[in-house]
Amino acid sequence: MKIALIQQRATSSPSDNQERLRSKIKQAAEQGARLVVLQELHDTLYFCQTEDTHNFSFAQPIPNGDACHFYAQVARQNNIVLVTSLFERVMAGLYHNTSVVFESDGTIAGTYRKMHIPDDPGFYEKFYFTPGDLGFHPIKTSVGTLGVMVCWDQWYPEAARLMSLAGADLLIYPTAIGSDPRDDRDEQERQRQAWITVQRGHAVANGIPVIAVNRVGHEEDPSHSSEGINFWGSSFICGPQGEILAQAACDSEELLIFDLDLNHAENVRRIWPFFRDRRIDFYEDIRKRSIQ
Amino acid sequence: MKIALIQQRATSSPSDNQERLRSKIKQAAEQGARLVVLQELHDTLYFCQTEDTHNFSFAQPIPNGDACHFYAQVARQNNIVLVTSLFERVMAGLYHNTSVVFESDGTIAGTYRKMHIPDDPGFYEKFYFTPGDLGFHPIKTSVGTLGVMVCWDQWYPEAARLMSLAGADLLIYPTAIGSDPRDDRDEQERQRQAWITVQRGHAVANGIPVIAVNRVGHEEDPSHSSEGINFWGSSFICGPQGEILAQAACDSEELLIFDLDLNHAENVRRIWPFFRDRRIDFYEDIRKRSIQ
Repeated sequence: MKIALIQQRATSSPSDNQERLRSKIKQAAEQGARLVVLQELHDTLYFCQTEDTHNFSFAQPIPNGDACHFYAQVARQNNIVLVTSLFERVMAGLYHNTSVVFESDGTIAGTYRKMHIPDDPGFYEKFYFTPGDLGFHPIKTSVGTLGVMVCWDQWYPEAARLMSLAGADLLIYPTAIGSDPRDDRDEQERQRQAWITVQRGHAVANGIPVIAVNRVGHEEDPSHSSEGINFWGSSFICGPQGEILAQAACDSEELLIFDLDLNHAENVRRIWPFFRDRRIDFYEDIRKRSIQ
Repeated sequence: MKIALIQQRATSSPSDNQERLRSKIKQAAEQGARLVVLQELHDTLYFCQTEDTHNFSFAQPIPNGDACHFYAQVARQNNIVLVTSLFERVMAGLYHNTSVVFESDGTIAGTYRKMHIPDDPGFYEKFYFTPGDLGFHPIKTSVGTLGVMVCWDQWYPEAARLMSLAGADLLIYPTAIGSDPRDDRDEQERQRQAWITVQRGHAVANGIPVIAVNRVGHEEDPSHSSEGINFWGSSFICGPQGEILAQAACDSEELLIFDLDLNHAENVRRIWPFFRDRRIDFYEDIRKRSIQ
């Protein structure tokens, strides 16, 4: 199955970002892609660099907002399953970082609300997003059962495991991560490699392919209290042994298309039957904050 | 803190294996190592290539067996903390794959019984070892709190997480893993990389250094029904961002010594506060065999 990952620079104009995505999705579909995955919060700049109440204006209701209508139409017109990442307005004062998956007929196959919310300098997401309340449930689509999560979730093996136990065929992470230009280059590279490694680790531990789509390019800090973020791209797809199958550049836009063999995971799980041997009788304490 | 990893070829003589280990441990101590980690079942060939009742003769009681007495003396004489991997005889018909950690004064700091037991062609461990019944508890020593597990455990993020939540400073895996020579070279390399990657993933997800010590060299299949196992060495130590700090060769014996900065993990956990944001309210189903 051909899968497309769209790694894009963001501008301050949502309609500009949307139109460029529409064009690339069309191109992906013409090249045979049946599943297209977008980066986190692809319609806007990464506004979480500051805590600014004006940014709540970017949020929209789901399913009855303009963004949902737009991407439903794009999915239907191109006959592809589409994984989007939207800023969801539930009501005034209540917002989520939500992935909406559109079926190829334009209907909504399912939604996922980002469960783990980061907060560190330049990534003030706890200001904007209430942690998800829907749990870890893969979304059934015509191209497979998709374990869709979002960005910070990718650091949590529990999340990957729960999606896999629930029958996901793929793990998918729309992402917005990058480097602080003030960090030295070695630290920046360690962070990028850690981000790749932990996700490849989920692939290995669960015998499942993983897709991560990250934004790319520099975005300024509107408060000018930092030097902004260099989003490191590097979007990738890896197989169920954690092997990198395709990877985008770290510094430029890319439409990455890969023809994934979904049957390979079945065979990998036969030679490495990790699920057979889990010691569920001793995992109770995973639910504790710490064990002291 | 200087840590030594001893990667060794095994012979059919336990006393030969022990004497060579004794010599290398002495060498490590002379070079300043305070913690020495051995590979899985270092006293014998990897006898699990076949199911043969004679092999139960290799098992010994803990703490009152010859192997325990031997390694207690070696730890005391060299004033090092020593992580061993022994075939434990509880009573006739009941055996474990057990790691015994010796304090630098020769006392036993703690034991861990391998919790996840593999069974696949050439690795018939379920015949020999009852799955561990002690759970995942790090062992306190004079050089730190050691999250000691064994081999197959290394594929399970739950195990790494539980050890980390319980205060481990390091994750340590004595290991016996290698390639089936009949697999093509690409598959062999994917497997080796997967083994490295999943453990580096544990380091990243938990902000903790990881040490894996694997045996090396070819061992024949006594039944001649296969071409034996090429143990792939590649013992390594990685830091809390998953960064490889030192790694042994894949095809030769090695005494690998690295001076690890244990404080780095504290700083990494400050910039990446994954533990802060775990959704323990939604992890209940980790204890299920599957979620359908």
